[in-house]
Amino acid sequence: MMAAESQNWVLMVTAQTPTNIAVIKYWGKRDETLILPVNDSISVTLDPTHLCTTTTVAVSPRFHQDRMWLNGKEISLSGGRFQNCLREIRARACDVEDTKKGIKIAKEDWGKLHVHIASFNNFPTAAGLASSAAGFACLAYALGKLMNVKEDESQLSAIARQGSGSACRSLFGGFVKWIMGKEDNGSDSLAVQLADEKHWDDLVIIIAVVSSRQKETSSTSGMRESVETSLLLQHRAKEIVPKRILKMEEAIRNRDFASFSQLTCADSNQFHAVCLDTSPPIFYMNDTSHRIISITEKWNRSEEAPQVAYTFDAGPNAVLIARNRKAATLLIQRLLYYFPPSSDDLDSYIIGDKSIAKDAGINGVLDVEALPPPPEIKDNIPSQKYKGDVSYFICTRPGRGPVLLSDSSQALLNEENGLPK
Amino acid sequence: MMAAESQNWVLMVTAQTPTNIAVIKYWGKRDETLILPVNDSISVTLDPTHLCTTTTVAVSPRFHQDRMWLNGKEISLSGGRFQNCLREIRARACDVEDTKKGIKIAKEDWGKLHVHIASFNNFPTAAGLASSAAGFACLAYALGKLMNVKEDESQLSAIARQGSGSACRSLFGGFVKWIMGKEDNGSDSLAVQLADEKHWDDLVIIIAVVSSRQKETSSTSGMRESVETSLLLQHRAKEIVPKRILKMEEAIRNRDFASFSQLTCADSNQFHAVCLDTSPPIFYMNDTSHRIISITEKWNRSEEAPQVAYTFDAGPNAVLIARNRKAATLLIQRLLYYFPPSSDDLDSYIIGDKSIAKDAGINGVLDVEALPPPPEIKDNIPSQKYKGDVSYFICTRPGRGPVLLSDSSQALLNEENGLPK
Repeated sequence: MMAAESQNWVLMVTAQTPTNIAVIKYWGKRDETLILPVNDSISVTLDPTHLCTTTTVAVSPRFHQDRMWLNGKEISLSGGRFQNCLREIRARACDVEDTKKGIKIAKEDWGKLHVHIASFNNFPTAAGLASSAAGFACLAYALGKLMNVKEDESQLSAIARQGSGSACRSLFGGFVKWIMGKEDNGSDSLAVQLADEKHWDDLVIIIAVVSSRQKETSSTSGMRESVETSLLLQHRAKEIVPKRILKMEEAIRNRDFASFSQLTCADSNQFHAVCLDTSPPIFYMNDTSHRIISITEKWNRSEEAPQVAYTFDAGPNAVLIARNRKAATLLIQRLLYYFPPSSDDLDSYIIGDKSIAKDAGINGVLDVEALPPPPEIKDNIPSQKYKGDVSYFICTRPGRGPVLLSDSSQALLNEENGLPK
Repeated sequence: MMAAESQNWVLMVTAQTPTNIAVIKYWGKRDETLILPVNDSISVTLDPTHLCTTTTVAVSPRFHQDRMWLNGKEISLSGGRFQNCLREIRARACDVEDTKKGIKIAKEDWGKLHVHIASFNNFPTAAGLASSAAGFACLAYALGKLMNVKEDESQLSAIARQGSGSACRSLFGGFVKWIMGKEDNGSDSLAVQLADEKHWDDLVIIIAVVSSRQKETSSTSGMRESVETSLLLQHRAKEIVPKRILKMEEAIRNRDFASFSQLTCADSNQFHAVCLDTSPPIFYMNDTSHRIISITEKWNRSEEAPQVAYTFDAGPNAVLIARNRKAATLLIQRLLYYFPPSSDDLDSYIIGDKSIAKDAGINGVLDVEALPPPPEIKDNIPSQKYKGDVSYFICTRPGRGPVLLSDSSQALLNEENGLPK
């Protein structure tokens, strides 16, 4: 039983978890409830400084029900995905003692206690930047810490997976593989770290958040429709991806950017090909996405070796991975040349690590206007510009995995009442 | 030897050949020179009244070299594709006698005589409407007639094929299958008619010629790159298309529009999926193409049975096949609702069979402006319009195969000197 001076205590934990971008894509479940994929996938974890979810989980005998707030707004926890995560973590809860506060929670008490959860993304949820991946990873990680769960990150990843498949890859920094597993119960479908973020710290990532008028198919229903109707999906999952996974692991191990780039681009395109082969077809990329691909392909082909890889998730945003800082400055120049800001406010047009643009000599809109056409486009072709087609750019890099935030000022819930601050 | 009163005679033949649109797509060659495909394909021949090539071929002892004019402009015949067609037809030439003109050409003389060729498309060449298919079919057909070639249309199709693969399907009206064949020399890679144009004369075809700022990859280089780099192409060609061909033949035989529509749309999408799986990826469809697909998919799903099929070739233009005239009037209303003309000139915005628009109650731009939103879109979603995104619509239907034009006023070359009129 709970041993505490009063029933007024609130115990809480705050964690921060990164988002991730797949370079070998996850598309298609073999089990919809447990979220078991039809193939392995590999991702790069993005620096949480620029893109992350912060989650505070609190427990108190005063709470009458499980509640959750996302970006300050209460949302329902009744969905199966939340319930699965909560149930799995509770089942692994252990004794917790906070001597300072005089709180003692026995393993068996967790089933009777309710939790409050507050989650916040440091980037727009609607931007299509895998907010649910970071969100469920953070939920599983924070609840695991709160409930003194002894399982390691890989085992926690199998729980986060049941919230959102790609969430399992956000339990680690650097380069991460989600092993599809073989078991029907999903126990071996989990993430492992291939290399940490220091292994290949040359890489620079620029995300183009693309303006879109189209409402996109959710990835959940999209991948269900692909599994049901695409005649190419199973061939991809069984024959193509297994070989690509081995090649990608080798490319990452050897920091072989040429292979990494070739595999990343080809796999992104193949994932979108499967979407197009779905009935009715799913279009996530739009004309702006296509243009960004053409610009990077043309540049790569004009150089001796690829300078940048591109990958697109279930939306039109481009995630561009430059081989190093020099390539990133050349990339941002090209991007700004074709997609100049539609207002004078460059500061809100290039967010994240602003030093890349500074290194590229871009300090204001006049610098953007002065950019010459990239040398790879022939002089006789007047190159079009596409002002307004990109909402903004985020400059970032590969980053670390989840961390606990011990500074209570960073908690999203009030220490006294467990409600959002 | 040639027996003629003088060396001043000119003998000529004029033919008209339709274009065609594949409903099971040809994409990928197993032999680049002979133009042998990696899979069978099936097409619908389009009514030559609205889309066709007219070609006049002439022979005269006065001609010093083979020459050709396309749409009034002289073009080079030095390309391998023209040379292959000319050589193959000449090899099959027979004795020709024109008693009226007093001309006698012996079989063996054809090798020494030069030809003049004039070809004209009754639609814009640049519109991406398979002008080379109609062109090479017309060349093979007209030369075959001029040189008294005894081979039937299927055998002529194998010659037209060496000019442009899809040209072989333009040797017949109605529904046509290009059998890929097995022989290394290509002798069994030819077209056969599945059913003539009267077999299923309910169908109405509306082509949306889509405005595009992008220069497209030629289908020749595009399919070469797909064969070399797409990991999905061989699976499609070997495992998927053979089954689809059988189903499509059955659908055409039974005039089963539901199956025809499902197969046509799925195969168009899969062809574009393979293009996207190519490295670098090939994008033929643009946002407007995607929108047209969404509009037709949404409408089809709101009805008990599909009303329209869509298919896209190597460009952004949509070819829409409506199940009957009633469906076609409902389709043109939807298309005009979303894509109103950007000028008041409706007459040049809807070309071809203008009676479809009339039946739909569209007699002018005011009728277009008065169109209500289609019932399948929910009232609460304000539907966007895309003025200017479609250049024009062509209303047509399945049509007949090649014909000779005996009226000399329709010849494109002057009877006296064999030069363009």
